[in-house]
Amino acid sequence: MHSTSEAAPPAVPRGLAGVVVTDTGIGDVRGREGFYHYRQYSAVELATTRGFEDVWHLMFHGRLPDPSESAAFAAHTASLRRLPDDVRAALPAIARAGAASGPLAGLRTALSLFGAATGMRPVYDLDAEARRADALAACAVVPTLLTALHRLGQGLEPVEPREDLPYPANYLHMLTGSEPEPARARAIERYLISTVDHGFNASTFTGRVIASTGADVAACLTGAVGALSGPLHGGAPSRALDTLDAIGTPDRIRPWITEKVLGGTRIMGFGHPVYRTEDPRSRLLREIAESFGGPLTEFAVQVEKEVVAILAELKPGRELHTNVEFYAGVVMELCGLPRQMFTPTFCAARVIGWSANILEQSADSKIIRPAARYVGPPPPQPVPAV
Amino acid sequence: MHSTSEAAPPAVPRGLAGVVVTDTGIGDVRGREGFYHYRQYSAVELATTRGFEDVWHLMFHGRLPDPSESAAFAAHTASLRRLPDDVRAALPAIARAGAASGPLAGLRTALSLFGAATGMRPVYDLDAEARRADALAACAVVPTLLTALHRLGQGLEPVEPREDLPYPANYLHMLTGSEPEPARARAIERYLISTVDHGFNASTFTGRVIASTGADVAACLTGAVGALSGPLHGGAPSRALDTLDAIGTPDRIRPWITEKVLGGTRIMGFGHPVYRTEDPRSRLLREIAESFGGPLTEFAVQVEKEVVAILAELKPGRELHTNVEFYAGVVMELCGLPRQMFTPTFCAARVIGWSANILEQSADSKIIRPAARYVGPPPPQPVPAV
Repeated sequence: MHSTSEAAPPAVPRGLAGVVVTDTGIGDVRGREGFYHYRQYSAVELATTRGFEDVWHLMFHGRLPDPSESAAFAAHTASLRRLPDDVRAALPAIARAGAASGPLAGLRTALSLFGAATGMRPVYDLDAEARRADALAACAVVPTLLTALHRLGQGLEPVEPREDLPYPANYLHMLTGSEPEPARARAIERYLISTVDHGFNASTFTGRVIASTGADVAACLTGAVGALSGPLHGGAPSRALDTLDAIGTPDRIRPWITEKVLGGTRIMGFGHPVYRTEDPRSRLLREIAESFGGPLTEFAVQVEKEVVAILAELKPGRELHTNVEFYAGVVMELCGLPRQMFTPTFCAARVIGWSANILEQSADSKIIRPAARYVGPPPPQPVPAV
Repeated sequence: MHSTSEAAPPAVPRGLAGVVVTDTGIGDVRGREGFYHYRQYSAVELATTRGFEDVWHLMFHGRLPDPSESAAFAAHTASLRRLPDDVRAALPAIARAGAASGPLAGLRTALSLFGAATGMRPVYDLDAEARRADALAACAVVPTLLTALHRLGQGLEPVEPREDLPYPANYLHMLTGSEPEPARARAIERYLISTVDHGFNASTFTGRVIASTGADVAACLTGAVGALSGPLHGGAPSRALDTLDAIGTPDRIRPWITEKVLGGTRIMGFGHPVYRTEDPRSRLLREIAESFGGPLTEFAVQVEKEVVAILAELKPGRELHTNVEFYAGVVMELCGLPRQMFTPTFCAARVIGWSANILEQSADSKIIRPAARYVGPPPPQPVPAV
């Protein structure tokens, strides 16, 4: 907002990289240590020892629940899974429209409609309890919306949510129409927990900027879904799997990768803007994949090993490791998820993290409103006559 | 994303106030001079000498059109006003849902649906021409969507757009069902031009953050609409008018304002985060109001004069003037717009500015991804057993 002719404004790195825009109590990513946490608890450890609803409670209430709180929170969120009739009625039209723009475009519309249909009001006008209730309601229906839109897109009827199943099992049930094997439900649960939050990425930041205006929870989440739909942000776990398909066989690993690297193409599934060591999510997801075993896992492990070695050779000093996308794709494939549902499944977890950030931001009364430096031709230029 | 234990990150003011996040060729706001421009042309001068479509062309193509380009651009954008059938069919359900969440919640859903229904693809995958075509299509239907949703909310049938009318006259036509008086159409046109863009406010910034991920134009605009719906950002031209209603009569000005100021209540319609002198939009809109004359204008001018004097007395050194909202409300009332349409009308203009910013941002490959400082209890804390 400042002109170059006024006081010199603070200059910051492009894309605000590394610029601290606020304090947070939600979590932290330590890129050099290869460690991240949610409210002081290692996310990887949470994914190993807790259920999804417990982590949701941690994100929303600031602490892990005790056993009776855990049961009550799980029952309450399960009771919120059903859609209002007018939202359910609109889904076929939303699913029809959404095909070309990708799986998140439908959620963007449906979540926006859900917010209005349930009468969500600006967070500015609500107390903390009412804000949290709106965010809980939105997070609880995201899996219902995503799976219904996916099934409608496939010409299938949506499957109603079941209140008696935990979150991950209910998600797979709504997607496939049958109750999942426990090992698959647990694998997806661990993936979902590991994906709930991860610093001030673009979608989380979008949600917070919108929240800083005092807008309603659906406005904030709709914007975050839009940001996640960007190819530079969310759209990649299926592409990492496409890389495995493109390589095809172990003997093709070296020539395929070498050709791509020398041609300047980015290898999907490798490298991260923050981690300078192994991505802790990647390690967790590899362990999950290895617990299933089978040819896909074996091939993925072999590709990882060879690619990391080739990249270290061709790009010395760059520290390129697998990122969350690489094994996330493998795990979701092993759990029977269709590839169009990889990014939506990520979104089903991340909406919890967005919501925690939105709730934190909405307690701050300061609107986020940066500035730009005008670099065009100098004004004022008289408007030419028509 | 950095932990406190790693290298100290750049510290910036709260809410990124005054922080330059990027270079722009779109415009500039000079708070101390009371001047703002679009691509080097005084916005106030443009509002006096040009039509809305010419300014739209300036924002999208980087220069004012010559007469034949002007006619071609106006005809092309007019041809884009009609809604696809499946979007039109969904509007009654969206209007029904939207009532409680305010007039922008419906646009948020409808614009998201429009993007998917027209198959908008990520800007990341498009060339500059295709991106601009998507943004043109979205901007062209925003008045159609807003007026249709408003009329449906009132139990009225939407009015189809007319291609033979310029943008502002068509807007009023779709809102009221009849062709407007030229003076009213011109007054709204000047208001719309003056409101197209205004620095890196929260909604513009939201659109740019989403665009930095490479997401589609509808995703970016849906997020911006959400940000504008926040009470700390867009929701106020009608509230400034409510202030005039609450004061009621000239003799009530001093006691009413004094009571509010001493009680610590913000007076809607006064003060701006950037301008340290008269808001140039306020001056323009006062002139437009005065061209209509009448008791509302006279009362508004009197309130402005007295309130500025009282504020100077009670808050010396603060330089509190009327902002864009104060006379915008008066002008829209004089032009016969219902109060629920004040913020949506603002939005119909601002979507052009958002789009210009989204197009500029999408030419930059750097994702906007800042950082936060974790200030909660120190990790790693072992996860307690359940």
